Amino acid sequence: LNCDLGESFGAYAMGVDAEIIPLVTSVNIACGFHAGDPAVMRRTARAAIEKGVAIGAHPGLPDLQGFGRRAMDVTSQEVSDMVLYQIGALYAMVKAEGGKLSHVKPHGALYNMAAADARLADAIAEAVHRFDPSLVLFGLAGSESLRAGERAGLKTAAEGFADRTYQSDGSLTPRHHPKALLTDPLQVAAQTARIVVEGKVGSVEGGDVAIRAETICIHGDGAHALAFAQAIRRRLEAEGIAVAPAASAPNQLST
Amino acid sequence: LNCDLGESFGAYAMGVDAEIIPLVTSVNIACGFHAGDPAVMRRTARAAIEKGVAIGAHPGLPDLQGFGRRAMDVTSQEVSDMVLYQIGALYAMVKAEGGKLSHVKPHGALYNMAAADARLADAIAEAVHRFDPSLVLFGLAGSESLRAGERAGLKTAAEGFADRTYQSDGSLTPRHHPKALLTDPLQVAAQTARIVVEGKVGSVEGGDVAIRAETICIHGDGAHALAFAQAIRRRLEAEGIAVAPAASAPNQLST
Amino acid sequence: LNCDLGESFGAYAMGVDAEIIPLVTSVNIACGFHAGDPAVMRRTARAAIEKGVAIGAHPGLPDLQGFGRRAMDVTSQEVSDMVLYQIGALYAMVKAEGGKLSHVKPHGALYNMAAADARLADAIAEAVHRFDPSLVLFGLAGSESLRAGERAGLKTAAEGFADRTYQSDGSLTPRHHPKALLTDPLQVAAQTARIVVEGKVGSVEGGDVAIRAETICIHGDGAHALAFAQAIRRRLEAEGIAVAPAASAPNQLST
Amino acid sequence: LNCDLGESFGAYAMGVDAEIIPLVTSVNIACGFHAGDPAVMRRTARAAIEKGVAIGAHPGLPDLQGFGRRAMDVTSQEVSDMVLYQIGALYAMVKAEGGKLSHVKPHGALYNMAAADARLADAIAEAVHRFDPSLVLFGLAGSESLRAGERAGLKTAAEGFADRTYQSDGSLTPRHHPKALLTDPLQVAAQTARIVVEGKVGSVEGGDVAIRAETICIHGDGAHALAFAQAIRRRLEAEGIAVAPAASAPNQLST
Repeated sequence: LNCDLGESFGAYAMGVDAEIIPLVTSVNIACGFHAGDPAVMRRTARAAIEKGVAIGAHPGLPDLQGFGRRAMDVTSQEVSDMVLYQIGALYAMVKAEGGKLSHVKPHGALYNMAAADARLADAIAEAVHRFDPSLVLFGLAGSESLRAGERAGLKTAAEGFADRTYQSDGSLTPRHHPKALLTDPLQVAAQTARIVVEGKVGSVEGGDVAIRAETICIHGDGAHALAFAQAIRRRLEAEGIAVAPAASAPNQLST
Repeated sequence: LNCDLGESFGAYAMGVDAEIIPLVTSVNIACGFHAGDPAVMRRTARAAIEKGVAIGAHPGLPDLQGFGRRAMDVTSQEVSDMVLYQIGALYAMVKAEGGKLSHVKPHGALYNMAAADARLADAIAEAVHRFDPSLVLFGLAGSESLRAGERAGLKTAAEGFADRTYQSDGSLTPRHHPKALLTDPLQVAAQTARIVVEGKVGSVEGGDVAIRAETICIHGDGAHALAFAQAIRRRLEAEGIAVAPAASAPNQLST
Repeated sequence: LNCDLGESFGAYAMGVDAEIIPLVTSVNIACGFHAGDPAVMRRTARAAIEKGVAIGAHPGLPDLQGFGRRAMDVTSQEVSDMVLYQIGALYAMVKAEGGKLSHVKPHGALYNMAAADARLADAIAEAVHRFDPSLVLFGLAGSESLRAGERAGLKTAAEGFADRTYQSDGSLTPRHHPKALLTDPLQVAAQTARIVVEGKVGSVEGGDVAIRAETICIHGDGAHALAFAQAIRRRLEAEGIAVAPAASAPNQLST
Repeated sequence: LNCDLGESFGAYAMGVDAEIIPLVTSVNIACGFHAGDPAVMRRTARAAIEKGVAIGAHPGLPDLQGFGRRAMDVTSQEVSDMVLYQIGALYAMVKAEGGKLSHVKPHGALYNMAAADARLADAIAEAVHRFDPSLVLFGLAGSESLRAGERAGLKTAAEGFADRTYQSDGSLTPRHHPKALLTDPLQVAAQTARIVVEGKVGSVEGGDVAIRAETICIHGDGAHALAFAQAIRRRLEAEGIAVAPAASAPNQLST
C-alpha cells in the first residue's frame, strides 16, 4: 500500500500526510519539480522515518503549475537528468534525517509516458540504477516501465491503482475522462481487494482486465485520500491480507 | 585553485567550462537554484571527473533571475533545507557519472550572508555535516562560515578571491561598487600570488588586510575567466608554488 | 474594505474567494510572482467583475515558495520592472473579461519594503503612473508608499489592517512575532471600527497609534478570512458606516 | 522582415539585439515564460521604440529551461490564459516606454502547435482579439494559425522563415532534424528572396513548396543572426524589394 505525498509547496498545503502515513507501508515523496519544496521534503521524510514506512522518490516533470500532469516532449536524456536530480535531492533529505531511500516512482505525466514509451522507461530505469542499483522501481502493472526496470537489473514493483479506473488495455483512464476517478471509499476498497485477490479489475468500457499488482497506490492529494486508505485497510484486513513495504518483498515480476 | 562553473541554463550558455577545468584543481558546480540545470550539472560533473579535478556543490538562493546575488530574508531552516536539496541533487549527478563529491561552497548572496551571520553559517555547516561529515566546507577567509564549519566538525578551506577586491575588514567589496572587480589578468595574478605568499591583500580603502587562504577562487562567469586562470597558473609556477585540490590538503584552519 | 485574493496556484487552492468577493468593495488580485497563475487571475477577475467590486493589481516579489513574504535585496529598477510586468499581466485579464483596473497594491515584503524605503516607494509609484496615471495606489497609512504616490501624482488610499497588529511607530508587527495576527473575528471587527471611527489603533507594546485609513484590508489566505469579513460588515453596519470602493472616493490624503 | 529577440534572462545574455534591431522592421519580444525577464523586456521595448520598428509580443510556453521549444499537453483555456498574461506584461513595458504594441507572434512549440491544431490556434486568436482587435497576428504561412486569426476577425501576417528549412507539406523541419537550420548567409538570403519573389521554397525532401509570406522571420538567438539580417537586406535591396512593418501593410490573406 503506497501513497504519493509531500505535495505541499511553500504556503500551499495539500494532502493530509500526517494522517495517511500511519495507514500505508510506502510513501512516494514529491521532489520539488511538480510539487514539494525542500522544507516539505525534509518534514515528510522525517514523518515517514518516524512511522517506519518505506520512502521513495517521486520525481516529476518540471511543471509546478500543471502539477506534473501535462505531458511534455522531453528527450530520454532530459528525463534521465531530471530523475537523477530529483532522486538525489530527496536522498539528501532522507539521509540527513537518518533514513534510507528504498524506491523510486515517477509521477503523473512522466509515469504515464514511461508506461507507454520504452525509450523513456529505459532512461528512467537506467538513471535509477546508476544512482543505486538496490532501489526498487515502481511502475504501472504490465507496462513498459517495469520491463525497462528488469532490463536495467532493478527490482520492480508492479502497481495497481485503488482510486483510478482502468481502460481495457490495462492503462489508466486519462484524468480528463469523466469516469477517471473513483470517489466512493467502498468502491475503492472493493477494486483494491479484487486486484489483490483475483488479479483483475473492471474496465470503463466494461469487461475485466487482468492485472498483477505488488503494490497499491492511493493518491494523497484527493479530498478522500484518508477515507480511501481507511476503507482499504479495513477491507484487506477483512480479507485476511497483510500489507508490507514493496521494497522488502521479493521481486516477483523478475522471477 | 577553484572555479565556480556549470552556470549555463537550458539554451543559455555561460562560461568557458571546458577550457577552465584543466587549469584548476577544484570546481564548484551550480545546483539549479541560482544557475545550472540537471543537464548542465551532469555534463559538468562528467567533464570534471574526466580531468580529475575535485568536485564541489555550489548551492545558491532560489533566484535564477538574480543569479543568486540578491540577498533574501531566509531563515536558518530554509537555508539548511535548500543547501541539503542542492547538495543531494549534485551528488546524484556525480555518483551517476562515477565520481565523488568532495566539498561544498555556497554561492553569491548565500556565501556572503553566511560569512557575516553565524546562525546562517551554522545552518549551512550542519546541513553539510548531516549529509556527509567528510565533505570540506569552503568559506571566505576569516569569516563566520569557517568558524561554523569548525563548530560542526567539518574540514574547512579558507578562500581568497583572485578577481575581487577586498575591504579593510576582510570582506569582499560588494558587486555594485565600481572597484569590486579586477579586470587585468596580471593584477589578478599578482593579488593571488600576494595572498598565497605574503598572506596579505590590498584593500579598496588603501592599506593591507591579512588573509589566510587555502584555496583561491576564480569566477567562471566573467569575460576574462580563462585569461585569469592562465595568468594565475603562470605566476604561481614562476613563484614555485604547487596547486592541489583543497579537499586533499590537511585542514589547516582547524588545527 | 479590500481583500487580497486570487492566490491559488495550479492545483493548489488558497482562500475562499467566491465567498469573500461579495463582502468587500475592492479586491487585490495576485499577479503570478508570489501567488496566482494566468488561469486563477482570469477567473478571479471575472468573479470580481460579476460582483461589481473594484479590481486592483497585487504585484509581489518573484518568490512563489516564500509567498512573496521574504524581503529581497532588489534595486529600484528591478522593482519598477516587476511591478509594471505584473500590472500589465493582470490588466490583460481584466480587459479580456470586460472590466477595468482601478488600483494597485503591492504585496507582502514588497509592500513593507516600500512602506519604509522612499526609493523603492518612488519606483513603484512611478511605474504605476507610467502605466496609467488614473490608477489609485494603496499603501500603509502614514508610510513612504503614500508619500511616493503623491509625489508621482497618483491618487492614493491609506490602508489600515483589520487582522494584523500594529507597532507603536505605526508599522505592522512582523509576521514572525507571536502577536502579529489577530484571530478573533470580534477583535478584528473592533479594531476595524476603531480605525474607521476614532482614527486610532492599539499597539502591541501598549498605547494607541493614530492611523488615518481610507481602506481596510482583510487577508484572503487566512483560515478565518470569511468570518472576519462577515464580522466587520456587521460591525460597520451597526456603527452606521457605509463602505465603498477606494477608487471611487476622493483622494483625501493628497488634499 | 521580423526578428525574435529580447531573449536574454537575468545574467544570461542571448542575441545581439542592438545590432539586429536597425536591420529589421518588426521585432517580437519574449515575454518571460520561455525567455526574457521584466528588465530585458523593458530595455528591448525601449530600443525598438527608439529605432522606430514595430513591436510584437512573443508569448511562449512556461518552460524557461526548454526555451519554449518542448511541446506540452496544454488545453485551449491554458493557452488562452498564458497568451493573454504575456501580451499584457509586454504591453505594460511598451506603454511605460511610450510605444505601441502592434502584433503578436507565438513562440517555438506554441507556434508550431497552433500551426497544426485549429483549437489551439483559435484559443490564441481569440485571446489576442479580446485584448485588442487591432493587433496583427503572425503565423506560419498556410497554417491553422492564420485561418484562426481570420475567424477571430484579426488582421494576420503570413510568415516565411529565412533560416529554417521546409518540409513538402509546408511545415518547418523540426529542430532535431540535421537539416532543420540553414547556416550560410547567402543561402538564407537566397531562400528569402525566392519566397518573396517567386512565392516558393525548396523542401528538404526535394521539390518546391508554394508559400505566400507577408513577413520573413530571422531568429535572434542564432550565432549568425546578424550576418543573416545583413545578407538578406543586401539581397532584397539588390532585387529592388522594399521592407516595411507587417502591421502597416494591408491584410492580404483575409481579402
